Amino acid sequence: MTSKQRSAPASLATVAAAAGVSIATVSRIVNGETRRASAETVERVRKAIAVVGYHPNHAGRTLRRRESRLVAMLAPNLDNLVMAAIAASTEAALRAAGYVMILCDTHDRPDLQDEYLNAMRSQVVRGYIMVASVPSAGLKDFVADGAPMVFVNRRPPFGRGAFVGIDNVKAGADAADMLWSAGLRRCGVLAPAQGSSVTRDRLKGFCGRMRALGVTEIPAAEAAGRSHLEIGYEAARRLAARNGWLEGLMCVSDQIAYGAYRFARESGIVIPERCKLVGIDGNPLNRWIAPWLRSIEVKYEDFGEPIVELLDHVWHAGGDAEHIMPHGVA
Amino acid sequence: MTSKQRSAPASLATVAAAAGVSIATVSRIVNGETRRASAETVERVRKAIAVVGYHPNHAGRTLRRRESRLVAMLAPNLDNLVMAAIAASTEAALRAAGYVMILCDTHDRPDLQDEYLNAMRSQVVRGYIMVASVPSAGLKDFVADGAPMVFVNRRPPFGRGAFVGIDNVKAGADAADMLWSAGLRRCGVLAPAQGSSVTRDRLKGFCGRMRALGVTEIPAAEAAGRSHLEIGYEAARRLAARNGWLEGLMCVSDQIAYGAYRFARESGIVIPERCKLVGIDGNPLNRWIAPWLRSIEVKYEDFGEPIVELLDHVWHAGGDAEHIMPHGVA
Repeated sequence: MTSKQRSAPASLATVAAAAGVSIATVSRIVNGETRRASAETVERVRKAIAVVGYHPNHAGRTLRRRESRLVAMLAPNLDNLVMAAIAASTEAALRAAGYVMILCDTHDRPDLQDEYLNAMRSQVVRGYIMVASVPSAGLKDFVADGAPMVFVNRRPPFGRGAFVGIDNVKAGADAADMLWSAGLRRCGVLAPAQGSSVTRDRLKGFCGRMRALGVTEIPAAEAAGRSHLEIGYEAARRLAARNGWLEGLMCVSDQIAYGAYRFARESGIVIPERCKLVGIDGNPLNRWIAPWLRSIEVKYEDFGEPIVELLDHVWHAGGDAEHIMPHGVA
Repeated sequence: MTSKQRSAPASLATVAAAAGVSIATVSRIVNGETRRASAETVERVRKAIAVVGYHPNHAGRTLRRRESRLVAMLAPNLDNLVMAAIAASTEAALRAAGYVMILCDTHDRPDLQDEYLNAMRSQVVRGYIMVASVPSAGLKDFVADGAPMVFVNRRPPFGRGAFVGIDNVKAGADAADMLWSAGLRRCGVLAPAQGSSVTRDRLKGFCGRMRALGVTEIPAAEAAGRSHLEIGYEAARRLAARNGWLEGLMCVSDQIAYGAYRFARESGIVIPERCKLVGIDGNPLNRWIAPWLRSIEVKYEDFGEPIVELLDHVWHAGGDAEHIMPHGVA
């Protein structure tokens, strides 16, 4: 196999032979049309591609990519206004630079993320903007392939890459100060189970700062779920069941705070009189219908420009780079 | 000119000569790259195209379009969760059918809508999903050209086309019944100035039903603005200044109700005790953080399937068609 990898570029036929499938099947899978093939076949072809060292007509693809005006944004869910704000500002910045943005909703699922990465490659997009990406086999291949990517909010999962986001440790610490300065001492934390680096950093910053302030016990509750709204509702239920209602709750995202608010309401707990909620994100709707929520403000509507700047850096200079966005205290 | 239109297909050169610009300029503009040209030049080329009857390599384009897996959705704003719900469900339905969705944010602006229509044509998309489209010169051309389109929420602005949406007259009437059955008689209306057919139909249904119930005076306030949130805030301010606070307010969209809620709060008016708000849309966040709002529920998360079905109808059968979605009373 090693010898093969060192020899002339492998062809679709080589892959087909190695995988024991037709050339047409390989071609379809390489171009992201994985629907007609079984998961088992797709996996076998993926392995064969790795083994024989096949690169889908790389030169031609790179050439066409340079001419392409398409840029793909992969985001975990459009039903979070934070994502909508990032998408809208990036779309505007790309349009000003002469590009067209393709927006793909990965629903935070590795399999969909890979399906879209393949689909976008078959559309020969010029670059990829990965908002809150999840580690996946496909993403790993794209990164190894040097695909032009900018990662947003969640850091590059495989070490290298360009990144735009906030200092989440600092944001967590600021949330702690927000509760502390309001005179609250018995505060808890609501977070998603199996949280991302964003969650971990926000918790690290919050708990670190609380301990520095002399708070030794910080009750925390986690929950799994498809949306942070559901996670917040369930985590609040668990924490209240275990510790009763505390003076304050730090929610690692505003949507988690929305979920906690609903559970509190259904439990007859008045927010913020009985329990103060602090979130992180500065959801645009807060000042309209969530006046009870104090939040660490992040200007996601300003993310577009630096994202496009870093994409340009990746295209022309290459190499790792990061742009840490400021956050405020509302 | 008439003779010219009847003669053999005009070429880029013919257009360039008629417009007095270079062939390269015409080519760029035809392919949606309007940034480098002045508005005046773009307009002159657009006129020349119409005069000499030029069709950008139609046959080739149509052929490539049939092979394309790209479908474009043009939506007025991603920062409204209603749009996000339509986009997410359509994206899922298209993916299941083997297509990739390009999402473009037109910000409800005719010029951006045209820019995106041209950009999408240059990407040879297979179909267009126009969510809440605005009448524009470019859209008129695309419709006349028979571009495969499905219109969502707002009806086709130029008479013909496929449509997916609710019965807005009925929805408005149901909102009236909602307030009436709550025992409210002195109710007002908050709406956007220069509203779309959606707004007009919802108002028509509401006022018609109210009159049928014997209500002769229906105070209404309108406001212009970039978002329904701002429109709701300003319209509520105007109505309160003119008529004081009424028993109930019908807001033609939930986001308008969100804006009215903020103004009421800032005015020390307790919602819903002092004034009941009724909206239309069933915004997904209502049950989480807007329990004070009663809304006509629209299942936008179910729009994807019928949208893709109608797109398929347009591709294969053609001709006008519509799918009226049900709405409920929360």
